Amino acid sequence: MKINPNFASMERNYLFAEVAAKTAAYQAAHPDQRLLRMGIGDVAGPLPQAVVEAMAAASREMGRKEGFRGYGPYEGYGFLREAISAYYADLGAQVDPAEIYVNDGAKSDAGNLGDLFDRDNLCLIPDPVYPVYVDANRLAGRPVAFLDATPENGFLPLPGPETRADIVYLCSPNNPTGAAYDRQGLQAWVDFANRTGAVLLYDAAYEAFITDPGLPRSIYQVPGAKSCAIELCTLSKLASFTGVRCGYTVFPKGLRRGGQALGELWLRRQATKFNGVSYPVQRGAEAAFGKEGLAQARQAVKYYLENAAILAGAIGKFARYWGGKNSPYIWMECPKGMGSWEYFDFLLCEKQIVATPGAGFGRNGEGFLRLTAFGSREDVLEAAERLGRG
Amino acid sequence: MKINPNFASMERNYLFAEVAAKTAAYQAAHPDQRLLRMGIGDVAGPLPQAVVEAMAAASREMGRKEGFRGYGPYEGYGFLREAISAYYADLGAQVDPAEIYVNDGAKSDAGNLGDLFDRDNLCLIPDPVYPVYVDANRLAGRPVAFLDATPENGFLPLPGPETRADIVYLCSPNNPTGAAYDRQGLQAWVDFANRTGAVLLYDAAYEAFITDPGLPRSIYQVPGAKSCAIELCTLSKLASFTGVRCGYTVFPKGLRRGGQALGELWLRRQATKFNGVSYPVQRGAEAAFGKEGLAQARQAVKYYLENAAILAGAIGKFARYWGGKNSPYIWMECPKGMGSWEYFDFLLCEKQIVATPGAGFGRNGEGFLRLTAFGSREDVLEAAERLGRG
Repeated sequence: MKINPNFASMERNYLFAEVAAKTAAYQAAHPDQRLLRMGIGDVAGPLPQAVVEAMAAASREMGRKEGFRGYGPYEGYGFLREAISAYYADLGAQVDPAEIYVNDGAKSDAGNLGDLFDRDNLCLIPDPVYPVYVDANRLAGRPVAFLDATPENGFLPLPGPETRADIVYLCSPNNPTGAAYDRQGLQAWVDFANRTGAVLLYDAAYEAFITDPGLPRSIYQVPGAKSCAIELCTLSKLASFTGVRCGYTVFPKGLRRGGQALGELWLRRQATKFNGVSYPVQRGAEAAFGKEGLAQARQAVKYYLENAAILAGAIGKFARYWGGKNSPYIWMECPKGMGSWEYFDFLLCEKQIVATPGAGFGRNGEGFLRLTAFGSREDVLEAAERLGRG
Repeated sequence: MKINPNFASMERNYLFAEVAAKTAAYQAAHPDQRLLRMGIGDVAGPLPQAVVEAMAAASREMGRKEGFRGYGPYEGYGFLREAISAYYADLGAQVDPAEIYVNDGAKSDAGNLGDLFDRDNLCLIPDPVYPVYVDANRLAGRPVAFLDATPENGFLPLPGPETRADIVYLCSPNNPTGAAYDRQGLQAWVDFANRTGAVLLYDAAYEAFITDPGLPRSIYQVPGAKSCAIELCTLSKLASFTGVRCGYTVFPKGLRRGGQALGELWLRRQATKFNGVSYPVQRGAEAAFGKEGLAQARQAVKYYLENAAILAGAIGKFARYWGGKNSPYIWMECPKGMGSWEYFDFLLCEKQIVATPGAGFGRNGEGFLRLTAFGSREDVLEAAERLGRG
């Protein structure tokens, strides 16, 4: 028996473990200091009440013989797919319920989608970006090339005449840079994919943070996307579902390669390696897309966006940054040419602020730092004050 | 862009779709006939009340700022891993909480475990068996060989001097045959794996149905298993969790290959392609393993076992069968040399009983039929009566 040799090619991402270890060591040495944790990529909650009530009611329903539900559809219940379709309609994108595949979170599908593709396909992945895209493809033994995201292109790289790819990962608004593509930018990628036959894997996990009406919230707002793009989304950041686990992937009916509809292949993959999402969770997700649920969810998003604006305002006085609007992330250039870890240490030891070194998200992240807006208002105001002291 | 060429080598399993189509056609033509559905592999529910209450309480907890939980551990919460470890202790198997990895159902891991192994490893898979093992390995492009399960070996094949394998799937009590290995049988497989370096993937999904104290309910009741076996289990059949989605996979600390602990590799895989199980679901699972939850769950298992005994009693008067005890399945030889589909049609049209043709589970399933005990007592008694009429 031989283990998968590709484990050796995965980057051991010690980022968050090292941040945690340094933070713990500092706190142990300085027990009286109040640390402000601005590195967290998780929501603060709580769940919207409409979601809580729907999940509790669905649990009770399962406790009655006549309300019990066993195995559900691999692709998710119709009631939830219809709610997601209606949400898309409100965004200005036409997505049929039959094109929607419910999952236990966008991360699972971001990795599992690889099962659709030949292992020789070339993946083009932005740098810096959420590390899961690279690691999942490395584990599958698929070749990976990087798409440079830098201050020069506003961290929003576009295809050029030299660009070669079979599969392109895009994440907008981006984790970690907060940069969001406009229509023209997405149109360039859609045109590239339709011209070359590449497939776009579009991660819209942070779409709920877009407030600028000029920025698309779904790639399907761009003409031509339905013949080249798979969109991944999640309730994690919209409705504080990080611990509840529910997302969805869209395979447009018109997305075909090699004579086959990718959505049909995906259903075969799911039927073999997945058994649907928990029924009470799907009822909770349905409630999140309801009128009351969405209103409650949007309150939390608004709160995080205000946090982001406060942090961005303080940072803008002494450093360049990206994001800070249409995103819960602020991606800042480390002052005075400092490296990611050097500035991380400075903020930890001199300001008692915990951030995330940009170098953890790829080579181009070196020299940058990610701050997140998921903390309490009190902590954010205090962090802005400490940063402002210079 | 090329799609994964291995989709072409997966067997298009039309089994359940064809059963459903034939059943619907018969019912449409004979609307007054009452069909008895004995082909269903899903539990009838309801969920144990202890589970319902725990899930509702956990949902409400998530709706309060101070009770909210975001991303949980990839491997599952400690409270659930400890409850599973205690359940193992009651079975007579020592499994440390740190060896347990919680998942969203055994089916996901039965497929995903392939990520651990080189794609050239030879998989040995029983025939007949749950079709997911074959399809998941075909999708990964891994070579598959079959292990003949027949009346001659009681549908419990053992390794012989010629047996070659890197990975061996075992399912006991078996789906679809209901046959369960005794200690000697499992010991033979454990000894084979320890001698050759193969890894056993032991699917214990139906362990809760074992009542015979001479039959092991976990492979870890057999000496030597902790250096060669991964065990998959689920709450689906124990506690009616088919629609709630929670299972677990055990990687013993002593299970190492190529100098690496497989559990550590699995955690890296899960960190890349999975984000943990829903918190309310994990609280529900914890409650299922509690005193009250287990008592409620065992009532349902006892009811299904009584159903199985009633069906087996009726079938035994005119045909050979396996299972019917220590399992919710009865695997019967079709009378008078009929083929699987031929006898299926006979039962549907002459007895108004819906079963599952054995041919759907592999080549060796031809000539057999699977009946399940998950129906209501009323339906089971009626089916026994109709079968008894000859």
